[in-house]
Amino acid sequence: MKRRDFLKKAGTGAVAAVAATTIMAPAVIAKKTYRWKMVTTWPPKLPVLQTGAERLAKRIEECTDGRLKIKVYAGGELIPPLQTFDAVSAGTVECGCGAAYYWAGKMPASQWFAAVPFGLNADGMSAWFHGSDGLKLWEETYAPFNVIPRPGGSTGVQMGGWFNKKINSLSDFKGLKMRIPGLGGKVISKAGATVVLVPGGEIFLNLERGVIDSTEWVGPLHDLRMGFWQAAKYYYYPGWHEPGTYLEYMFNKKAYESLPKDMQKIIDSVCMETEQWTLAQFNALNGAALQTLIDKHHVDLIKFPDKVLDGLRKLSDEVVAEEAAKDAMATKVNNSFQKFRKVIGTWGEISGKAYYNDIQKDYPLKV
Amino acid sequence: MKRRDFLKKAGTGAVAAVAATTIMAPAVIAKKTYRWKMVTTWPPKLPVLQTGAERLAKRIEECTDGRLKIKVYAGGELIPPLQTFDAVSAGTVECGCGAAYYWAGKMPASQWFAAVPFGLNADGMSAWFHGSDGLKLWEETYAPFNVIPRPGGSTGVQMGGWFNKKINSLSDFKGLKMRIPGLGGKVISKAGATVVLVPGGEIFLNLERGVIDSTEWVGPLHDLRMGFWQAAKYYYYPGWHEPGTYLEYMFNKKAYESLPKDMQKIIDSVCMETEQWTLAQFNALNGAALQTLIDKHHVDLIKFPDKVLDGLRKLSDEVVAEEAAKDAMATKVNNSFQKFRKVIGTWGEISGKAYYNDIQKDYPLKV
Repeated sequence: MKRRDFLKKAGTGAVAAVAATTIMAPAVIAKKTYRWKMVTTWPPKLPVLQTGAERLAKRIEECTDGRLKIKVYAGGELIPPLQTFDAVSAGTVECGCGAAYYWAGKMPASQWFAAVPFGLNADGMSAWFHGSDGLKLWEETYAPFNVIPRPGGSTGVQMGGWFNKKINSLSDFKGLKMRIPGLGGKVISKAGATVVLVPGGEIFLNLERGVIDSTEWVGPLHDLRMGFWQAAKYYYYPGWHEPGTYLEYMFNKKAYESLPKDMQKIIDSVCMETEQWTLAQFNALNGAALQTLIDKHHVDLIKFPDKVLDGLRKLSDEVVAEEAAKDAMATKVNNSFQKFRKVIGTWGEISGKAYYNDIQKDYPLKV
Repeated sequence: MKRRDFLKKAGTGAVAAVAATTIMAPAVIAKKTYRWKMVTTWPPKLPVLQTGAERLAKRIEECTDGRLKIKVYAGGELIPPLQTFDAVSAGTVECGCGAAYYWAGKMPASQWFAAVPFGLNADGMSAWFHGSDGLKLWEETYAPFNVIPRPGGSTGVQMGGWFNKKINSLSDFKGLKMRIPGLGGKVISKAGATVVLVPGGEIFLNLERGVIDSTEWVGPLHDLRMGFWQAAKYYYYPGWHEPGTYLEYMFNKKAYESLPKDMQKIIDSVCMETEQWTLAQFNALNGAALQTLIDKHHVDLIKFPDKVLDGLRKLSDEVVAEEAAKDAMATKVNNSFQKFRKVIGTWGEISGKAYYNDIQKDYPLKV
C-alpha cells in the first residue's frame, strides 16, 4: 500500500468511526426531552384537583426518566380557566385539566363525561369508560377539536349544598337564589329557583351577605376549607346533581402524537393511575373532613326528603332529554349512557346497595 | 507537519472518534433489557384475573419501550399456585399475582389486605391503601420476606354463594357442607357448617353430585362461566364474607431494586392503573352476566335475611378479633383498619348509601 493510499484509508477510518457514532444516535435521540405546559381550571393549590394535576406531572416525569417535563399552571396563571379547552385545541399549550361539562356550550355531549343529574356514580362512570364504550365516545366527541381526552378520576358522590332554609318540598326551590352551575342549575330553574353564577372565591361572601340563599360546591373536604358552615345553617345530601363527577386530562393531538410511543403509553398509564388516586383521596379526606364538620362545627346534616328527590329526578329527566336532543353526538352519547345505566343499575342493587344497607351498617351516622 | 506525525494524528483521530462513541454508551446501556417471569394463583385465561396479569405485563412492556418483558404463567404452569409468594420471596421468579389472604398461614396480617368479612368495599380498601396507611402497612408486613406488594384492584362486592336449600336463619348453616375458604369459612364453621375445600375445577361436579351443598365463588361473571346455575337452586347476595376483595401484585425486592428508577416508577404506575381497570371490568362484566343469569337462566336471586346477616356479623367480629390477636403485626394492621372504617363508614352513609338508595333507584331489580 502506498503511503498516500494509507492516508486516505486512515481518513476513511475516522469517518467510519464518526458514522458508527451516528448509527448509535437513535438511543441518544430517544433521550430527547420535551418541555410541556399544562393549564387547569382549578384555583392554585386546590386539594386533590390542582395538587392532583401536579402529582400527575411529577409521575410522568419520573416514569419518562425526565424526558417529559410538564409545568402545571393553575386557572388564570397563564390563561383564564374556561379557555383551557381552546388553548389545548389550538396547541397554545400541550395539555390541560378540568371537567368536561365546562365545554357544554361547544359540545353538549361533553356533559355526560363529567356529571349527569341522577346519573352514574364513580364506579359506574369508570365501568362505562373502561368496560364499555364511554371513553371511545369521549374521544370521538373531542376529535374534531384535535384534543385527546383521558378520564382523570372522580370526586365521588358530591354533597347537595348549603342552605339557610329547610327544603321540605319541591316548592321550597321557588324564588331560591342558589349558586349551582350546569345541568343541576337547569333542573332547579325548572323548579322555580334563580340560578346565580358566582366565582369560587366570592361564594362565601355572597352567601354570608344573603346575595345568594344557597350554594353547592364539592364535598366535605372542599366545603370545610371554604368555611360554608359559618354562613349557612343546613348541609344537605346527597348531591343528586353530581353523583360521581369525573375530572379530565386532555392533550393536544399533534403534541401527543409527536411523542415516542412509550411516552404516549406512560401518559395513558399515569392518567389511569390518577383516577385511582383521585377517588381514594376524595373518599379518605371527605371522611375525615365530615367528622370535623360534625364533631367540631356541629353542622346540621340533612337528607333531602324523598318527595323532593323524586321531583328533582323528574325534572332532571326532562333536562337530560333536552340536552340529548341538541345534536347527533349528544344523542349518541346519551343512548350509550342510558343503556349502560340499566346494566350497571341492576348490578348495583345487589352489590353496592346491599353493601351499604346490609354489610356496612355498624357505623351509623351520629349527628 | 511530517508525514509520520500526520499518520499518528490520523490514528489519534480515529481513537478519539471511538472514544466519543464510548462516551455515548450510557444511553445505550440505558436500553438494557430485562426478562422477568410472573407466576399467578389463577387458572389459565381466567377473565380479568389472569387476563389482567397479562394485560399488566403488556402495558409495562409498552411503557418501558420493551426494556422490561414479563412472561406470565398461570397457576401450576411453572409452580403450584399457592407457592407463588414463596417463589417471589426466594427470587425463583421476579414477580407474582394473587390475593394476600392466601398467605394467612405465614402472616395472619396479610388477610386485611385482601378481604375481611363485613369489612371495607373496593372504594374503602383503595382509600385505606392510598389515602391512609394501608399500603404502608402492607409493605411492612411483606418486608421480612423481601417482597414488595402493590394493590392489584378489587373484584367489587362478591356474591353470597349458591345454595340448594334456603337460608332463613343462622341455624340453617348447621350441618351445611359449603365450599368457602378463608375467614368466611371460619365464620360459618362457628355457625355449625362443615367447610369443604375443593379446587376451583372440581366445585361444579361436587355441587352437582351433592358432595357439597353449597359454594361461593366470585360474582356473576365468573359464576356464570362455572355453570353453577345448573347445579344449585338459589343464588344468595350479598357476599358478606368478601365485600371488596383486593388482588395483589408482588415483586421480589432485589429484582425490583435492580431496575433503573424510571422502570420502578412505571411498575408502580401500571399496577395502580390496573386497580382502576380491574374494578371497571368487574362492574361492567358482572352487570352483563347478571342480566344473562336472570333473563336467560332464570336464576332465583335471594338476599340473605337481616337476622342471618346480623348473626354472621357477630361471628365475624369474633373471628376477626381472634385473627388480630395472632401476632403483633396482625394487631397493628387490624387497629389501623378498624380506625379507618369509622372514618370512611360515616362518609359512606351520606355518599355511597344515599347514592344507591336515593339517587339510583329507577332501575329496581326485576327477578
